[in-house]
Amino acid sequence: MLKFNIQKKMDGKLGRVGTLETPHGIIETPAFVTVGTKATVKALTPEQVKDLGAQVVLANTYHLYLQPGDEILKKAGGLHKFMNWSGPTMTDSGGFQAFSLGAAFGDNVSKIASGESVVSHCGSENGGTDSSCALAKIDEDGVVFRSHIDGSEHRFTPEKSIQIQHNIGADMIFAFDECTSPQASYEYQKEAMGRTHRWAKRSLDEHKKLNTDRKISLLGIVQGGRFEDLRKESAKVISEMDFDGFGIGGSFSKEDMYTAVGWVNEILPEDKPRHLLGIGEPADLFGGIENGIDLFDCVAPTRMGRNGTLHTSGGKINILNAKFKDDFSPIEEGCGCYACQNYTKAYIAHLFRAKEMQAGTLASIHNLYFIINLVKKIRQSILNENFEEFKAEFLERYYGNSL
Amino acid sequence: MLKFNIQKKMDGKLGRVGTLETPHGIIETPAFVTVGTKATVKALTPEQVKDLGAQVVLANTYHLYLQPGDEILKKAGGLHKFMNWSGPTMTDSGGFQAFSLGAAFGDNVSKIASGESVVSHCGSENGGTDSSCALAKIDEDGVVFRSHIDGSEHRFTPEKSIQIQHNIGADMIFAFDECTSPQASYEYQKEAMGRTHRWAKRSLDEHKKLNTDRKISLLGIVQGGRFEDLRKESAKVISEMDFDGFGIGGSFSKEDMYTAVGWVNEILPEDKPRHLLGIGEPADLFGGIENGIDLFDCVAPTRMGRNGTLHTSGGKINILNAKFKDDFSPIEEGCGCYACQNYTKAYIAHLFRAKEMQAGTLASIHNLYFIINLVKKIRQSILNENFEEFKAEFLERYYGNSL
Repeated sequence: MLKFNIQKKMDGKLGRVGTLETPHGIIETPAFVTVGTKATVKALTPEQVKDLGAQVVLANTYHLYLQPGDEILKKAGGLHKFMNWSGPTMTDSGGFQAFSLGAAFGDNVSKIASGESVVSHCGSENGGTDSSCALAKIDEDGVVFRSHIDGSEHRFTPEKSIQIQHNIGADMIFAFDECTSPQASYEYQKEAMGRTHRWAKRSLDEHKKLNTDRKISLLGIVQGGRFEDLRKESAKVISEMDFDGFGIGGSFSKEDMYTAVGWVNEILPEDKPRHLLGIGEPADLFGGIENGIDLFDCVAPTRMGRNGTLHTSGGKINILNAKFKDDFSPIEEGCGCYACQNYTKAYIAHLFRAKEMQAGTLASIHNLYFIINLVKKIRQSILNENFEEFKAEFLERYYGNSL
Repeated sequence: MLKFNIQKKMDGKLGRVGTLETPHGIIETPAFVTVGTKATVKALTPEQVKDLGAQVVLANTYHLYLQPGDEILKKAGGLHKFMNWSGPTMTDSGGFQAFSLGAAFGDNVSKIASGESVVSHCGSENGGTDSSCALAKIDEDGVVFRSHIDGSEHRFTPEKSIQIQHNIGADMIFAFDECTSPQASYEYQKEAMGRTHRWAKRSLDEHKKLNTDRKISLLGIVQGGRFEDLRKESAKVISEMDFDGFGIGGSFSKEDMYTAVGWVNEILPEDKPRHLLGIGEPADLFGGIENGIDLFDCVAPTRMGRNGTLHTSGGKINILNAKFKDDFSPIEEGCGCYACQNYTKAYIAHLFRAKEMQAGTLASIHNLYFIINLVKKIRQSILNENFEEFKAEFLERYYGNSL
């Protein structure tokens, strides 16, 4: 079970600094959660993940269910043992990927039976290789989708998602929800939200049945898109259920995000942790934290890294820029990460051009270190009561005139 | 400069145990040299390379000359600093790759001017992506080849190879030689050998000119194919030149190898180290060592590893075999490598199926550890005077009835 302890609250804002005790160690919050989609943080050993300062790893239920199968993880003794990560872990519910990666029922047209909804979700923010639109067949019971690996048909229900997540055995798991498109209409958001609430209750019931040793904690998910009344209603309904913490689904546009997060966190109980799903851009970390978010996860640092885009305090750089070919300085002077302590931009640029695997390793280490340490610095600025100065200074330097 | 010290000789055989002092540390010989083609051991950090027991890394002149360019390595402060490897290093001469990877002059037909030789070399044992036959234009001065990256035309001469290798700045470098096909006729081998001898002299002259601080050691290469008189003549001619050690070119069939190595090592001066180029199969390590070889290099352990083929004391296994999907034992019980100490076959098989980069990392660690430690065990067996027993026992278990 989780023990969440608030150390300090921001003056006049929802933000707070705390600690979150899990069966596998304490997370100092706010914290950035490193994504290890398929029970591995891409290109890194668990020791590298730990050394760069990561406190907690999130694996994906959809991916592990399809490959190698959650029964394999159960037989292996659970996620920690399987992947050799001894720290805190989370899994998502698999819903997002089932909707966004699960292949369509032929030619993007789904068979609609009476009472079923058909929703199109575009993009593949969370681990997919195909960025085209996908269709999933949603009904009251759950979602039917096709595997992106072999096209086989599968059904996720709230009960099934919780069973899979218990087999995987992370410390913190999520209720099964419908993650809608930010573009969805008010009517559709309202309908999907109602379903998410009913699925939340079913997720909780299944979890209580399986969680006999009380080791695993379940987080409920607030939806409601960009609509104030829906967000508030969802926060109220979900907070009244017996969850150990909360996730906030990312179905809103960037501009609305902080406002929507604020609406929700005004209502969620203060004494439980809140996770903003799938968010990892520097500006959003500040915005989320001052609006009461404790945990973030995002594939961006590692995915961007593998593409050669690197964070620096002066903004993002593309290491494949010709000027770095003979630049024998680190990615960022003064950066404490393994990549900056031991390698030059010229070397990392060479590894990218030569398509060497260490390119992805070094870039991922740097970007994860940058983001994880940014959140740690924000945490410290709250403790030091100089959040606003730190934020202004960081954003000015990082985005310059682009914000 | 090198200091080679022989600790113990085998009774009635050419094999010996020694130490080789380089400006970057001592190598206990015989030793397996880890290949880091493009100034990186594929999929591994230098710390991982060191932790698995590697003593020395060999980079490829052809690859580094084309990308990022040897001038970049020179500006970076040399290979050690560029790739963050503080131990001993070597580079090959670039000749093998220029012949085998350098693209043909259009449709595999070369323009033959009077007095030029045209040789076809097949396969790409040493780092290439293209296994088709390639043509290179060889004349007395050197070899003209096309880059496998962009098709641009380049010329390597003995002088050029030594200049590039000095820019790269490894501890041990090789004379520029012509690596012939094992299938080449006696006449061609003889002609190529003569050229290799003249190129050896030119390599040595250029090296002496550049090696003013005497930090870099030059190894001459013995050729001569599978022919006893040529091998012996080449060993005699090369050993009379002022090299710091010797390489033996791998231009013979497997069956002839130990015999040919024996012919050569009977003649080469005892007090200088001998490197058998491009050899790394377990049986060949025994055969080479008892015939007087001190150093081996080969891409096989890492390349095989990335393809899912893993060494065990009972022979090679393919981790993608279905039976390993739920095998929660390590690759090899009792193996001390990082992969076996921390992961199961089921997990590694999952990483391969999921096309995760850590698959290559863990497989490379295991295979390199296996081969490097096999050579260390052979070394110890010579010190313990039980080489024959160890060899018989190992080969019986590894190859079973297949030898």
